[in-house]
Order: sequence, then structure tokens, then C-alpha cells
Amino acid sequence: MGVPRVLELYRDELVAELRAIIGDSSLPLYDMMRYHLGWIDGSGFSPPAKGGKLWRSFLCLFACQAVGDGWQKALPAAAAVELIHNFSLIHDDVEDVSPERRHHPTLWKMWGQAQAINAGDAMHALAQLSLLRLESKGIAERKILQAAKALDEACLRLCQGQYLDISFESQIDTSVADYLKMIALKTASLFETSLYLGALFGTDETAVIEHLCGFGRNLGMAYQIRDDLLGIWGLPEVTGKLRLEDIKRRKKTLPVVYGLEKAKAEGGEGLLKLYQQETIGEEDATKVASLLDGLGARCYTQDAVKQYYHQALFHLEASDLTSQADLRGMAVLLLGEME
Amino acid sequence: MGVPRVLELYRDELVAELRAIIGDSSLPLYDMMRYHLGWIDGSGFSPPAKGGKLWRSFLCLFACQAVGDGWQKALPAAAAVELIHNFSLIHDDVEDVSPERRHHPTLWKMWGQAQAINAGDAMHALAQLSLLRLESKGIAERKILQAAKALDEACLRLCQGQYLDISFESQIDTSVADYLKMIALKTASLFETSLYLGALFGTDETAVIEHLCGFGRNLGMAYQIRDDLLGIWGLPEVTGKLRLEDIKRRKKTLPVVYGLEKAKAEGGEGLLKLYQQETIGEEDATKVASLLDGLGARCYTQDAVKQYYHQALFHLEASDLTSQADLRGMAVLLLGEME
Repeated sequence: MGVPRVLELYRDELVAELRAIIGDSSLPLYDMMRYHLGWIDGSGFSPPAKGGKLWRSFLCLFACQAVGDGWQKALPAAAAVELIHNFSLIHDDVEDVSPERRHHPTLWKMWGQAQAINAGDAMHALAQLSLLRLESKGIAERKILQAAKALDEACLRLCQGQYLDISFESQIDTSVADYLKMIALKTASLFETSLYLGALFGTDETAVIEHLCGFGRNLGMAYQIRDDLLGIWGLPEVTGKLRLEDIKRRKKTLPVVYGLEKAKAEGGEGLLKLYQQETIGEEDATKVASLLDGLGARCYTQDAVKQYYHQALFHLEASDLTSQADLRGMAVLLLGEME
Repeated sequence: MGVPRVLELYRDELVAELRAIIGDSSLPLYDMMRYHLGWIDGSGFSPPAKGGKLWRSFLCLFACQAVGDGWQKALPAAAAVELIHNFSLIHDDVEDVSPERRHHPTLWKMWGQAQAINAGDAMHALAQLSLLRLESKGIAERKILQAAKALDEACLRLCQGQYLDISFESQIDTSVADYLKMIALKTASLFETSLYLGALFGTDETAVIEHLCGFGRNLGMAYQIRDDLLGIWGLPEVTGKLRLEDIKRRKKTLPVVYGLEKAKAEGGEGLLKLYQQETIGEEDATKVASLLDGLGARCYTQDAVKQYYHQALFHLEASDLTSQADLRGMAVLLLGEME
């Protein structure tokens, strides 16, 4: 059975778990969460559009299945990582003043900033609560506490990464090393934790768990860097983002950080001037993208994705698991085919 | 030993616990949390001003001591409720666009909204993590999981209350019943949970735990209503709030909700018109306070505080604990002497 088929198989139960966690409260606060997750539109009906891709959840379930044979027992943890990811997106959108996500108005655009911050907080609390559902899956109390600790720590690292991300916006001299540290905290850590949680419930073998964590961490790095790449050179109808939004918001993505470093070393005044403006308009953003390409930032970023991809696969192989095919398939699905 | 002496005794260890949880990270994100807690001023030095009053923490420690004899084992839980309370204050200040708290600029005023939302999220994660420190106090895994569930549920109710509070601002016809539901969720629930957590680690007697919860819940109601009262008729130098801020922000506090209901019934057009304005200036706010007083809203609110206070004491007595004096003393400290 190929990965897409497995995803179909898992998706229904995963969404059912998420729906059980959100519950059936009629308080509009819960509709805000349902809206963000893509289950209803702004007027309370089921929308034609899809919600998030649930990658982190699937990785958690695949890890649990790979080390043992019961992906279902990881469902509450898979839901928890998804809710942590989504609460952080709700808050990110407020923090970045982003008007759109997944082709729809963001939560704060619909209900205002105050309610959006609050709905994110509620989802954060629900993420923690969902972990406590692991008891009904027969998971030992000790392991649930380990899982809670891992999730809280991942969430804390996510905030540390977000701190860096926001602070980079107002500084011109962010280095590639700074950037890598930031995404390790903001993105790779939750990927790693998704794998960790799945593995934790299926095995006690430390080496296996550690290699799956390494797989997740590197996959997360590659995924974020690829996201940066698509944010500049991807098609908006595929990415669901507004065109060149990252550049217009002067985000310090890898191509930009690399490009600015290179421009400084080689006297590329044009790029530096464009990026030092208070705001960057459509025309200037297109110029920035083209200058970055000329400086080799696109190729450099593509190479970085490949390196982290191979590093992820190295860890997967080193785990010595007999059933690696699905996790490998997930890597290809997330990052595209790679030589 | 009187309550103030006990508080002094507890405070040092409580603050040490909180400091251990926040840790010594040099990332400025942690300075934001230290700033909000009143440990440093905006330039990184220890401030002359005090942080919060730590009431919820103390209630947790007093409950633990009252049911057994070891308040210290509840320290991680006492710290956790304080961090939940404070993360919600950080977010409240962003949501309410409040410029000041405890005579100092709010976190978002110092570091901007984006970083403030993020610092609140980090504190929320730290609150969860601090509960996991209960293991080192010899608390059984089962009880830690029960504690985590209670704290997450209290946090969720807090968000539900906050949802109502925000939505009341844009509706004119909030009833007293609506208001009471809102503060039960937003304030009383975390008070109740503070007592619950303290009791949980010292006893297994359900009746005792339930009565302590009842004590906490009613104390929380009384505390919030008294806060509403002080927000209008208290001295700013005592409350640490800006004068008549609640009215200027058109907050639906109990005196206001009661007064508006009464004005509608009795044709008090003046108050209704004043409160329907987009914003309420200094002069109009003073008029509102005086009209509310004339409608009996001040007396009504004072009576409500008394009722919840007596209800709290009823539960305390019904708990049949031999050592009730300190908890009773806390109620007096929080609400003032009452006949």
C-alpha cells in the first residue's frame, strides 16, 4: 500500500480524534477554532476548501506504526501536535498581520485580533488536554507524562524560534547561522517531537527513538527551507500564500539571508537598498526575487533542502527499522522527488 | 502565626520555584517574562516596584497545608497557576490595548504586540512544564496527570470567559446572569483550581476537596466583583489601574451591567446614552460613576461581594478541616473585613 493510501486510511480517524477534542460546544469560540481548522466557513457551514495538510500528525502516526504495529494508539498525540501547530499559526497570523491563510481570511481578519489571540490560547489548552486521552489507549502514566513534557518543551522552543523570527525582521544583518538556529526552534523541533511521540508509545529502544528524532528534525529543516523557496519562486495557487508575501513583509527567509550576506560581500548595493525599505511593493519584490536568483540564492537554498533531506534519510536508515518505506515515502511527499 | 507572617514564609520559596521554572536563559524572550512578573525593569535591572500579589499561588499552598502538613510539595502547582494567570494577563493587555499594569507599561507597550503574544505563549508552556516538577516532590504520576487535566481545563474555561468578556464589550444588553457566567469562567475557575491542586496532593477525601473547591470558586467570584467595585470607586494608587479605566473602555463590570439593566427598566436614558458612545471620555466616565451610584449599583455590588464571601466561608466550615484559620484569613485579606 502506497503512502497516499495510508494517509487516506489514517485521515478519517485523525480528523475524528480532532473533532472529539474540539467537542460540540456551541460557544462561538469553538467555531473560530473549527474555522481555522477548515471545517466550517465564516458563516458556519462546511466549506469546500481543505484545512491543513496534517503532516505533523501523520509523521507521528507513521512513527508509531513503524516501531510497532498500532498507529491508532498515537492518535491523541498526533492530534496534539497538530493543535500546537495550529494554535501557533493563529497567533503567527496576528503577529504578522497576515490577512490570508490557505486562500481564506485569517481568523483575526474574521473575528478581530483579541478573539483570535484568545482562540489560539484555547487551542493551546486543548492540545495539552488531548494528550491526556492517551490513557484510554492503554498508554502507561509514565509515558503520558514524558509525552506531555516533550510537547511542552517543543512548544517552548517554538516560542523561542518565533522570538528570533520576529526580531530578525527589524535587523538587517541576520546570518545564515542565525536563520538555521531560528528554524531549528520554530519548525524542526515540532517535527522532531511528532516523531518522538509516535515512537515513544511503540518502543523503549533509545537508539531507534533518537534516530527517528533525527529524521524528524532534519525533515523539518528541509520542509521549512523548501517553504521559503516556494514563498518566492512557488506558484501562489499551489502554496496558498499571497505572491512574494515573504519578501514584501521583509521576512528573513534563507534565500534572503544568504542573498543579503552575499550582496554585502560583493557590494550588491541594489539588493541591500531594496531590502532596507520600510515596506517593499510588488514591483520591488519582483526585483528582489530576480536579484536573489542572480546571486545564486535559489540554487543555494535548493541545495540546503537536499542536504537536510539526505541527513533525514541517513537517520532513518540508521534506525535499522524493517519498515522504513512509509516514512521515506512521507519525506518524498513533503519535499518532492529528489536525486 | 498570622496570615501575613505565613505569606512571608511561603513567598521566598514560591518565588524561588518561579525563578527556577523561568530559568536563566539569556534570550530576551525570558526577560519579557521576568519584566511582566516584576523581577526586572525595562532595562534589565531589578525594579523597586513589586510584581503580582501571588494570591492564587498562596491559596494553593494554604489548601495543601490545611489538608495535610506539607505545603512545600504543592510549590510546582502553586507556580503553575500563577503562570497561567500571568500569561492570560499578558494576552489580556494586548487584547484590551491596555497601556499600564501595576503602575508600569504593559509588556506589549515595551516590546510590541507580536512579541507580547509570543511571550504569553511561552509562559503558558512553562506553566504546563512546571506541573511536571511535582515528580521531584514525590507526587504520584496519577495525581500529576489529574493536576495537569485540572489546570488545562481551568485554562480552557478562562478562554471561554475571555471570549464572553470581549464579546460583551460590543453588546449593550448584557444581563447580570451573563456577567456572572463570564466571571465564573474567567476568574472563579482558576481560583477553584488553585484550591483543588493544593488539596489534591494532601488528601483523597472527595468531600473535603469539593468543599475547598467551593470555597475557592466563591472567593474568586467575590474577588472579581470587588475588583469591579474598586475599578470605579477605588483609588488608582491602591488598585494600580488608571482612573475609571473600566468605564472608559466600556467594560461590562457588575455595577455597569446592573446599572444598565436598572436604567432600562426605569427609563434612565442618560446612562444608556453615555454608555452607547464609541469611547467614553474622562468627564463622561465620572458622570457614569455618579449615575451608577444613584441607581444603587454600588450598594448592589457591595452586597454581591458579601454574599459570595459568606458562601465561601460556608464551604470552608463544611469542609470540617481542623485548620481553617489561615484560609479564612486569606479570604479577609483578599476581600477586606466584612460584617
